[in-house]
Amino acid sequence: MGNIIKQIAVLGSTGSIGQQTLEVVRAFPQRFRIIGLAASKNLDLLAQQVSEFKPRFIYFQEKEALARLNTECQFLPLEDIARHPEVNTVVIATSGKSGLLPVIAAVRSGKNIALANKESLVTAGEIITSEVRLSRAQILPVDSEHSAIWQCLNGENQKAARLILTASGGPFLHYSPAQLGNVTVEQALKHPSWQMGRKVTIDSATLMNKGLEVIEAHWLFDMPFEDIGVLIHPQSIIHSLVEFVDGSVKAQLSYPDMRLPIQYALSYPERLPNPELLRLNWDSLHSLTLEQPDYDKFPCLRLAIEAGKKGGTYPAVLCAADEIAVELFLSQRLKLTDIAHLVEQALEQHQAVAHPTLEEIMAADTWAREKVYQLVIGDNPC
Amino acid sequence: MGNIIKQIAVLGSTGSIGQQTLEVVRAFPQRFRIIGLAASKNLDLLAQQVSEFKPRFIYFQEKEALARLNTECQFLPLEDIARHPEVNTVVIATSGKSGLLPVIAAVRSGKNIALANKESLVTAGEIITSEVRLSRAQILPVDSEHSAIWQCLNGENQKAARLILTASGGPFLHYSPAQLGNVTVEQALKHPSWQMGRKVTIDSATLMNKGLEVIEAHWLFDMPFEDIGVLIHPQSIIHSLVEFVDGSVKAQLSYPDMRLPIQYALSYPERLPNPELLRLNWDSLHSLTLEQPDYDKFPCLRLAIEAGKKGGTYPAVLCAADEIAVELFLSQRLKLTDIAHLVEQALEQHQAVAHPTLEEIMAADTWAREKVYQLVIGDNPC
Repeated sequence: MGNIIKQIAVLGSTGSIGQQTLEVVRAFPQRFRIIGLAASKNLDLLAQQVSEFKPRFIYFQEKEALARLNTECQFLPLEDIARHPEVNTVVIATSGKSGLLPVIAAVRSGKNIALANKESLVTAGEIITSEVRLSRAQILPVDSEHSAIWQCLNGENQKAARLILTASGGPFLHYSPAQLGNVTVEQALKHPSWQMGRKVTIDSATLMNKGLEVIEAHWLFDMPFEDIGVLIHPQSIIHSLVEFVDGSVKAQLSYPDMRLPIQYALSYPERLPNPELLRLNWDSLHSLTLEQPDYDKFPCLRLAIEAGKKGGTYPAVLCAADEIAVELFLSQRLKLTDIAHLVEQALEQHQAVAHPTLEEIMAADTWAREKVYQLVIGDNPC
Repeated sequence: MGNIIKQIAVLGSTGSIGQQTLEVVRAFPQRFRIIGLAASKNLDLLAQQVSEFKPRFIYFQEKEALARLNTECQFLPLEDIARHPEVNTVVIATSGKSGLLPVIAAVRSGKNIALANKESLVTAGEIITSEVRLSRAQILPVDSEHSAIWQCLNGENQKAARLILTASGGPFLHYSPAQLGNVTVEQALKHPSWQMGRKVTIDSATLMNKGLEVIEAHWLFDMPFEDIGVLIHPQSIIHSLVEFVDGSVKAQLSYPDMRLPIQYALSYPERLPNPELLRLNWDSLHSLTLEQPDYDKFPCLRLAIEAGKKGGTYPAVLCAADEIAVELFLSQRLKLTDIAHLVEQALEQHQAVAHPTLEEIMAADTWAREKVYQLVIGDNPC
């Protein structure tokens, strides 16, 4: 099986994860071939990618603009790329709710799904996992934390007793609550250990990102929320830990480099030697620290776990409210600490639906976006 | 398979590992049954164990003394217990070279061999591993380091790129060379993190123990010495690490408690919940440190790795010389730092045999013991 070239579609190819996926593919031309590329905004970069990887299928949000590309690629909607018979592995690297319908399409077509989009599992984990049980599809986690857990579970024939997700703690780990209220966008975008997109960098600064990952882990590994913990690990070397029923714990370690979990998802069950991925150098790595997070100082983490436990449409409201609040913070309309307040208000005012359909999830998403705008405009007329 | 009771023989049942093995067996009467017990010296404890576990076979070095036990157990030599058809798993917890022939007998009879005796693989790794390839036998490591590596390799279908054994560093990690020369037996027997037998505790203080484990790892995991590293980890929580070809590293963690690796070797491929084994408590565990060992201050580590690389009868000389030197240190005839000098002299003066037979290994062992006595009596006439 190692010699079959995997045909890969990358949805969200111009984003941070999408670009790193293409770096991995570039390193292994004998193993991976790009058959589909999809982007929403950056046409210039998409054009470069098309010229280098010569995919068969392409998607761009503004279809008409594609005429400028002078390519023979076939235009297909996201979901049609995700379900195309020639696609073996779909990398879902789109952001926000745009990943949801392609994930469902890929699951129903029995694809390998390298999943980097958090929102799809967070908002529709119940639907996706029940569809996966009915199909040949396999969800291959791309987040470094979930990849770590997956690697540690490899070969174990029993369920884990406990999952522990690590969090760098972000740039404001040791800030006082007062200092947190006054951080600038520029400060919040400077993550101490990871290079990531803007939205996830802000979510890391508020620890919302870790809360979303707890919900993802719940669905990916069928683990009760009570058995999922979070530890702050500022060095970002231990990417997560798994405790087994006998008390033994396994951890996965590496430098913070998303190309490793991306590559593992693409090459699984094999591992491939990639000179681009640095080996841990123990001459310069001396101390690995782990500590409990401060749920009062970082209320987004608590809000996310609570929303995950309540289930239904709450996680969709959490995600959508957070997305808008982060957008407003990035455009300097809010303080960083306002994000949690807005998310909390949206969750409190939401009339939730248990076991929602996709349509009910989408409706909750729309409701939450409008609610946050309304709360902000109500508070800060502009 | 989980419901079949494994019939277990424990060779060395009155030593530290033997007693802890019986604690594990006691915790799982539905899974494990003791069918053989063997000890060399402690008849009173053996009598208690026989009365509790009612084995079918028994061995005691001084056979005649067994009459005092008033038991219906059948006396068998160690090797006959190891190869008996009713035995499923043999725990080799004897110390020194007494483990070697029972290991060979168990390998040839296709047993599961829970191997705690270091010397057998160190001195006769080539013979044992080539016999294992011809048999249905499986060597299940019991040392915490090798168990950690084994757990991390579980489910991986490719060879590791690098193994990293951790070492607590022992009680004298930060002593100066001058201080090391003056430590007392009492100080050397106080290990900071592990409760172990006297010989292995002294070997931990000199790091000879880690050197022996490097040689064991070489044979157990078919790994070149160049790809086996050692890191000092005074907290004894990370028991070893494995680096894979893609740069990903897995580590196994737990409190230092030999019952966990013993239990894993007995229950493999299952894991069993055992309330006696404490879960890692992250409220009190904050920092895990790892640093390179000082090969100049702890020359036994270097000597062991060199002897392992040279192979042949050198590792047998290393083990035997160390055993006698440790014995002389424990009886206050030597300084701790003399151990390395004596081992080094024995290695230098040895006329090695490449690819030795068991007889040649035994002869090298005898030669080295006599050589160390001779060197000490020559230096310190008594």
